[in-house]
Amino acid sequence: MTPVAAAAGAQDALVTLFVVLLAAKLGEEGCRRLGQPPIIGEILAGVLIGPSVLGIVEPDAVLEVFAELGVVFLLFVVGLESRLADMRAVGGRALRVGLLGVLLPFVGGFAFGEALGEGLEVSLFLGAALMATSAGITSAVLLELGAGDSAAARTILGAAVVDDVIALTLLSVVVGVSGDGVSVTSVGLLLIGSVIFIGVVAIAGSRLLARYPAVLRAPSFTETGLLPAVLLCLGLAAVAGEIGLAAIIGAFLAGMVVAETKEHTEVEEAVKPLYAFFPPFFFAFIGLNVDLGALADPGALGLLAGVTALAISTKLIACWIGAAGLDPRERALVAFGMVPRGEVGIIVAGIGSTAGVIDDELFAVIVGMAVLTTLIAPPTLKRLV
Amino acid sequence: MTPVAAAAGAQDALVTLFVVLLAAKLGEEGCRRLGQPPIIGEILAGVLIGPSVLGIVEPDAVLEVFAELGVVFLLFVVGLESRLADMRAVGGRALRVGLLGVLLPFVGGFAFGEALGEGLEVSLFLGAALMATSAGITSAVLLELGAGDSAAARTILGAAVVDDVIALTLLSVVVGVSGDGVSVTSVGLLLIGSVIFIGVVAIAGSRLLARYPAVLRAPSFTETGLLPAVLLCLGLAAVAGEIGLAAIIGAFLAGMVVAETKEHTEVEEAVKPLYAFFPPFFFAFIGLNVDLGALADPGALGLLAGVTALAISTKLIACWIGAAGLDPRERALVAFGMVPRGEVGIIVAGIGSTAGVIDDELFAVIVGMAVLTTLIAPPTLKRLV
Repeated sequence: MTPVAAAAGAQDALVTLFVVLLAAKLGEEGCRRLGQPPIIGEILAGVLIGPSVLGIVEPDAVLEVFAELGVVFLLFVVGLESRLADMRAVGGRALRVGLLGVLLPFVGGFAFGEALGEGLEVSLFLGAALMATSAGITSAVLLELGAGDSAAARTILGAAVVDDVIALTLLSVVVGVSGDGVSVTSVGLLLIGSVIFIGVVAIAGSRLLARYPAVLRAPSFTETGLLPAVLLCLGLAAVAGEIGLAAIIGAFLAGMVVAETKEHTEVEEAVKPLYAFFPPFFFAFIGLNVDLGALADPGALGLLAGVTALAISTKLIACWIGAAGLDPRERALVAFGMVPRGEVGIIVAGIGSTAGVIDDELFAVIVGMAVLTTLIAPPTLKRLV
Repeated sequence: MTPVAAAAGAQDALVTLFVVLLAAKLGEEGCRRLGQPPIIGEILAGVLIGPSVLGIVEPDAVLEVFAELGVVFLLFVVGLESRLADMRAVGGRALRVGLLGVLLPFVGGFAFGEALGEGLEVSLFLGAALMATSAGITSAVLLELGAGDSAAARTILGAAVVDDVIALTLLSVVVGVSGDGVSVTSVGLLLIGSVIFIGVVAIAGSRLLARYPAVLRAPSFTETGLLPAVLLCLGLAAVAGEIGLAAIIGAFLAGMVVAETKEHTEVEEAVKPLYAFFPPFFFAFIGLNVDLGALADPGALGLLAGVTALAISTKLIACWIGAAGLDPRERALVAFGMVPRGEVGIIVAGIGSTAGVIDDELFAVIVGMAVLTTLIAPPTLKRLV
């Protein structure tokens, strides 16, 4: 690319970024004044300016990168508020919540597809689209409510990591079935690689940084530990993505590693502006992907209602069971906290659509389900907290 | 685009952003330890990881956007440290420096092209590539040296605004000559539009915000005035770009407008992390555009030496004359401060290359000149300050 073509592109991108940020913040402002959770306003602002309604902004590659950085910095901040010891304390329960919370919705979605008479591949993708929780959405709501360090919140976060590992492994099986076939070796490698990455970073990373805290301090290129911490966050996010995990798992682990150091309050303070700037793009981007046009007939709406009800009920039941041992209010908090599918459902739908397995209607239905489960969580969690 | 294609793109972009930021910061670290100005390290890191040497990173559309936001936030911070009254006090001198500083290098470049026997169009583009100063580079150096609010610094900034308006008007003439012909109306409209935009924002904008400071405070979506200020910055940058000005002029004016408010120290503090995160992409991106391969023969190197010497000498002489009235040290500071061509030279070369007027060798020579004039300024300014 010649610089000038890029320069014209950069100007267009500047206008788009301004419009999206302004719309998201106005949406948030409106929701706050109505006493509603702010991220709902940011998502609806995305729907409003997107192709469905006003058509001012299309979701494009640059916005996708800003959305990705938004959820990366979001989970980094969440990690900064998480302590490894606390996470270990909820380990067993988080494992149960994560495991059941993936399996039941997957089975439910698959059975629903089969009952509708869809083919094997479509049913598998429907199951896959329902299985994974969006840790970003729930984390944002809990942070917002100041409930980021309750036992329920830690259970949700631990479960979200487990959820992501199992869901990605299952997804690689589903994609294999609809494509070149399943290689047990590659699925096994993904699973083993993920577990090793998480284990090494969470345990060795924390110990290393605790022993050599100067890593955050030594560089003379920054007054605070912000940039070394940001580099750690981006680096681990990139590695997680390369392994096949969600990048946000790496960002979350990076935050947790920095949280063990003396510098963590300083980094928390310094990262705030990045946390204010990027995440609105993430929420608005979810809204930008909604296609109201494809949902504008009774059949599609009925399907959307059915899939959404299934997505909510299966996740609620599975996570309620998994969270046994907590008091009822906390169990409900964990269960509702795991409901939002957010960007994960949209990504699975996108994979199915690119592979030619899912048609436009089902794509729109899954995206609609992802957004509806996301919009339901904030007010429910607010009431429970 | 389907979300999944974008998701893969977002993962690649994440890796690239990490690599570029890491390289830029390591380059800066090395330069600091050697007692050299940090931005030199960031630019050279870009050259090193770019297509010329290691070939790890190609300059692409996403990096271009991050580079653009880098220089936008850079000029916003510079604007925050500038007072309208101080700018007015240096107005006449800044006008002379800006005007002479564009005209002499333009005439020099044009004459050089004609002397080499190049065609009219090539000569015009050579003149255009030499004429405009990169306000971003000089501002970064002055900020770094803590000399952002001297009379010389204000003269440079005022001159850079004048420089940009005149240079862009001239550039539209040059592009017209090599394309569909020059329309006096459109050139006139660009000039008038620019002057009106700058005048209205600088004067009315400051008064409006001084009268209604609540604009930065009223939204409940942010604890500090950061996001409203960032929106003002991005908005004015986008408008400036749409008019045909450089986006950074809008960002600079936005900073100057916010500087007149009570909130300015708070915004200055809050914007620091954005200022730490984005500008390294700008400096590294300049280095990424360098093509050492195309410069690897004696003819090209000779041409590069000649063009660079011309770029430096014409700008120095013109701005030295324009800065009459300051003491000699300050005149030298202004003159050397106007030398860096940075991204502006690269953009003009890109336009000429896209239009088919400039060949690959001359493109590489102009980019090389832009980088060399940029590398010369920081150590010189450091000595003068």
